[in-house]
Amino acid sequence: MRATVMYGAGDVRVETVPDARLVEHTDALVLVTRSAICGSDLWPYKSMKPTETGRRMGHEFIGVVEDVGNDVRTMKKGDLVVTPFAWSDGTCFFCKLGLHISCLHGGRYGLDGVDGGQGEAVRVPQADGTLVVLPVNEEGTLLPSLVTLSDVMSTGHHAALAAKVGPGRSVGVIGDGAVGLCGVIASRRLGAERIILLGRHPERVALGKEFGATDVVSERGDEAVERVRELTDGLGVDSVLECVGLREAVVTALEIARAGGAVGWVGVPEDENVRAGVAFWKNVSIGGGPASARAYIEELLPDVLDGRIEPGRVFDRTGPLDEVPDGYRLMNEREVLKFQIAF
Amino acid sequence: MRATVMYGAGDVRVETVPDARLVEHTDALVLVTRSAICGSDLWPYKSMKPTETGRRMGHEFIGVVEDVGNDVRTMKKGDLVVTPFAWSDGTCFFCKLGLHISCLHGGRYGLDGVDGGQGEAVRVPQADGTLVVLPVNEEGTLLPSLVTLSDVMSTGHHAALAAKVGPGRSVGVIGDGAVGLCGVIASRRLGAERIILLGRHPERVALGKEFGATDVVSERGDEAVERVRELTDGLGVDSVLECVGLREAVVTALEIARAGGAVGWVGVPEDENVRAGVAFWKNVSIGGGPASARAYIEELLPDVLDGRIEPGRVFDRTGPLDEVPDGYRLMNEREVLKFQIAF
Repeated sequence: MRATVMYGAGDVRVETVPDARLVEHTDALVLVTRSAICGSDLWPYKSMKPTETGRRMGHEFIGVVEDVGNDVRTMKKGDLVVTPFAWSDGTCFFCKLGLHISCLHGGRYGLDGVDGGQGEAVRVPQADGTLVVLPVNEEGTLLPSLVTLSDVMSTGHHAALAAKVGPGRSVGVIGDGAVGLCGVIASRRLGAERIILLGRHPERVALGKEFGATDVVSERGDEAVERVRELTDGLGVDSVLECVGLREAVVTALEIARAGGAVGWVGVPEDENVRAGVAFWKNVSIGGGPASARAYIEELLPDVLDGRIEPGRVFDRTGPLDEVPDGYRLMNEREVLKFQIAF
Repeated sequence: MRATVMYGAGDVRVETVPDARLVEHTDALVLVTRSAICGSDLWPYKSMKPTETGRRMGHEFIGVVEDVGNDVRTMKKGDLVVTPFAWSDGTCFFCKLGLHISCLHGGRYGLDGVDGGQGEAVRVPQADGTLVVLPVNEEGTLLPSLVTLSDVMSTGHHAALAAKVGPGRSVGVIGDGAVGLCGVIASRRLGAERIILLGRHPERVALGKEFGATDVVSERGDEAVERVRELTDGLGVDSVLECVGLREAVVTALEIARAGGAVGWVGVPEDENVRAGVAFWKNVSIGGGPASARAYIEELLPDVLDGRIEPGRVFDRTGPLDEVPDGYRLMNEREVLKFQIAF
């Protein structure tokens, strides 16, 4: 079969790999119908050291079940399924808490002999715990939005929950990437009154406004902090969604939060050390991390099916698998917001 | 009148200062009956640069109202009152949220012409917003516990709330100082099932056990982390109260929290930069900061009055005002846990 393999920074290839097949009794074999390139895929695209063996890529996809292992109970051949970006057993201590991302028996796509999602087929471990069967057929117009449940929409929702977004709250969303824009959707969905989007890419902030952003701040650093304070009677916002991860963005997030406010961080932190002392003195809480997308898919699915939210609009380019290397390049150059792969 | 003045590291004097007196219509003049030395007073005691003018000390006290300004409504001469460690108007945006510590018109004792609490009398600004009238007389045996509401008990409670302590939760308390021990009391009060106290001072951990600690870990650093994991099936604790502030203690706090757990930090951080990346990957939240003691006094007061909690037991030395310099020295040498001043 054909799949995406990264061999080093800037070196992404689509090539023939061994066919995906069932290994464990708890596996499902899924033929991918939609997949995507993630902002987090750009980190290795910028920095990965060259390797000879390469690394299988992709962790966001929808597909049709082709076969299941003997122990799989909740799906059958022909079902359309969506995956969270990590697989999990659904039964361990953490899964029962809704923290599937910390599953004691889970793992990531593209590692340990598990296929990546940017390919024709994937062996999905712990299929019952991982996959969610979708009540739509594979021709639907909802597919782009359903793919976002794998990661970006669930991650934006996670940021909003960690930032304690709720009715009447003021929110700052840092980053106009796909996760930031989904954070705007999530904030509005949770009842935020005011949503200030910090970003400067014209088309992306325009989409953010359609998603519900009430204000846009295009400044950065201290100027951005000052501007947000001007917009909030000098106090700062109740909730901040940090959807970038760069050092400066994290500091800005902590600084624009009002005393007693909350920062939800989901951008992979550039630096393990954070100027969290800023948060201490004003009792700002910091929460978040990798999202338990598995827990959120079921929560967000009805809103996608009813068309109440349309996170699939973050895809501004769709192409076949062979165009994936171009997709990486275009996303890295910020020419494309998010690339969807249609099989 | 006589009051405590710090002139530099290790240089604390009790001397004659101008009598406290009403200045604003919202002031109360309070004759101090009990006061205390705080662990946070030891920071300048260790590091303050010598000054000629000195700095008035103390922010925990109970006293009797001697006089009030024309605008004070909620207390009268003769009332016994307790103060939170900071004063606040009780009416601003933040006070209404219960975040009195960030009062827009509040401040700290010992600064800006306001007396310190380690003295015979104090002018308390914004008396209606700051002071809480106590329904006991000044001879009661409850006074030590009531004094702790000014700071250490309220701060321990704040740490527990920020760490999301609740029924059935497992808790790690870092630090066997007065705040850590009050954190044990608070954790038990909030229903924690297991309370692991990280400390190594024999008498203090013994008191911690009487307060409700179920386990004691005397190791530090990586060994402490390993020991806590052994005690918790390898997972870590649900809630961590960081009551020290030293760099290593903060890292230990983040490391002993289980995935999805919560750290409440109330120890003044030694370093503004924190290795918060540890928290990111396992979705551990970090909350806390200076406590809004004003909000907690009313919540905790019934339990003190009924004897359900006895935080006053953290005082292991009581002396008159003249012994305050000795009190600082003994606390700094860890000979005394917490020094109470009786007038």
